[in-house]
Amino acid sequence: MVPSPQEVKDALQERLLGHLAHSDPGYQALLQEYPSRGGKRLRGLLVVYAGLAHGASLEASLWAGAALELFQNWVLIHDDIEDGSEERRGRPALHRLYPMPLALNAGDALHGEMWGLLVQGLEAGILPPPVLAEFHQVVRRTAYGQHLDLLWTLSGRLDLSPGDYFRMVAHKAAYYTAVAPLRLGALLAGQTPPSLYEEAGLKLGIAFQIMDDVLNLEGDEAYGKELAGDLYEGKRTLILIRYLQEAPPEERTRAEALLRLPREAKPEAEVRWLWERLLASGAVAWAKEEAKRLAHKALDALIPHLEQLPGRDAASHLQALLTALVERRA
Amino acid sequence: MVPSPQEVKDALQERLLGHLAHSDPGYQALLQEYPSRGGKRLRGLLVVYAGLAHGASLEASLWAGAALELFQNWVLIHDDIEDGSEERRGRPALHRLYPMPLALNAGDALHGEMWGLLVQGLEAGILPPPVLAEFHQVVRRTAYGQHLDLLWTLSGRLDLSPGDYFRMVAHKAAYYTAVAPLRLGALLAGQTPPSLYEEAGLKLGIAFQIMDDVLNLEGDEAYGKELAGDLYEGKRTLILIRYLQEAPPEERTRAEALLRLPREAKPEAEVRWLWERLLASGAVAWAKEEAKRLAHKALDALIPHLEQLPGRDAASHLQALLTALVERRA
Repeated sequence: MVPSPQEVKDALQERLLGHLAHSDPGYQALLQEYPSRGGKRLRGLLVVYAGLAHGASLEASLWAGAALELFQNWVLIHDDIEDGSEERRGRPALHRLYPMPLALNAGDALHGEMWGLLVQGLEAGILPPPVLAEFHQVVRRTAYGQHLDLLWTLSGRLDLSPGDYFRMVAHKAAYYTAVAPLRLGALLAGQTPPSLYEEAGLKLGIAFQIMDDVLNLEGDEAYGKELAGDLYEGKRTLILIRYLQEAPPEERTRAEALLRLPREAKPEAEVRWLWERLLASGAVAWAKEEAKRLAHKALDALIPHLEQLPGRDAASHLQALLTALVERRA
Repeated sequence: MVPSPQEVKDALQERLLGHLAHSDPGYQALLQEYPSRGGKRLRGLLVVYAGLAHGASLEASLWAGAALELFQNWVLIHDDIEDGSEERRGRPALHRLYPMPLALNAGDALHGEMWGLLVQGLEAGILPPPVLAEFHQVVRRTAYGQHLDLLWTLSGRLDLSPGDYFRMVAHKAAYYTAVAPLRLGALLAGQTPPSLYEEAGLKLGIAFQIMDDVLNLEGDEAYGKELAGDLYEGKRTLILIRYLQEAPPEERTRAEALLRLPREAKPEAEVRWLWERLLASGAVAWAKEEAKRLAHKALDALIPHLEQLPGRDAASHLQALLTALVERRA
């Protein structure tokens, strides 16, 4: 019997918090703050079902799934500092609850504990070395994508094309969200991942990130982050890039003037104006269509492959989760 | 023939920079900035000679030495951000050369590349799994020590004893500076490190950090950091703790008032006054004696053991480096 998504989430949560236990309660609270807020556990779920679908043990799959959740948590702590974000999962960002240096250091500690978990799994004979190599790729790709994203915002780059966005997001989000879980599934079972996992995973992951950008403008109360936070932070989203390419010259000038201001200096009324223009101009709708197009292309290639995997029930869960990537509300 | 310290440093430097090569030249410059500044390569040298002394191969020893140097470099990037430091190795701190978010992210990238190097060594059969487990201990201990150090400064703690300092520094600096290189030497050769390495290494590492604090007040032109930067940053050094414990009440009150101010608000004349008091009160001299006492105790226990190791020439280099830890000028 394959465990249900709720059972997997509970098991991941228990491992995450257990692995971050520390004899200093104040320090433990800092390390466990983001993981204890829950979250979708999407990447962990994907890893577990991908592992089971390929025939890996539940133990190995949960181990690697918990490690990818640890990855997600330390990256969020550092991203929130880098972006000057206010909220995370419906509560203040870690560096708003604690002085920034303590939050930064807690992110490093979680990064170290992610590797600690992987090395424990290696020493116990549960995780093969290629699983650790995959986590190195995850860190490497994500850090480079984050570099591009930050660089564009901090240097005021406004001459970007959708192709630039796809390349940045492939590194920053798509690899760890969709490619790595699929590849880890095969690696956990001692198999070589087919190149299809990277090709289709990148498309799916990019689609997921586009929908993330859409939710930042259209989210409801289930959305745990600051609405329109991307506009305050000056994120170069596909929506914004499309809008700037299509806007009449005076609108584009007005939008660019706003985007050049630092977060604190952005007038709320101007942010609201740009927000409305992104929606009314059709840029949001266009981006949603792009996300759907990419996701369908990926799923059309992936599903026949997933249906051949030995763990049929787990493969069904995996397929459902991958399909839901672009139908998210939070 | 055992390679000379200069040959080892050159080999470590080549590996460090080579491992941080990237197809994006701007990104590569960011990643290589601290490693390209050189530095003492002290931890790398210790690992290499410890490995050779225990009978490990030069290749494995250089591999682990380069990884510990990568550790040192990412930690320095993040420490400099956390401490608001101005300089590193005689040049501006990374977050003064680049926007802070890019520097923070580069630190994460280097952390990931440290693990990448270790995993490559594992997959090539050069590094055994316990070497990776030791690096996890290094990250875990250092992050907790850094947490305590930051917490004390940020929360304005002034009621600290020398015992508190020893405990914090054991985690923050001593483990990775002296314990880990000794233990890695044994682990690289497939041996179980004796408990002596942790006991003596902690004492030596604490002595090293005390002398680091001394140099911040007494350094000459070879010292690559901002002189008295620790006073501006409000570091709870052994010197400061001793001074506060021994100072007459009105001096203590004046010093505490200064230490409560944020860095930017500290009047230069007051910093200079405290600096002179630390030297004139004998607190610096007392701390130096503590460092010597700890180092001698550690070396008295270690040297007979090191003299028994199979790699005699490497063990001599190791002994010389360990002895020099408390005789440093930079």
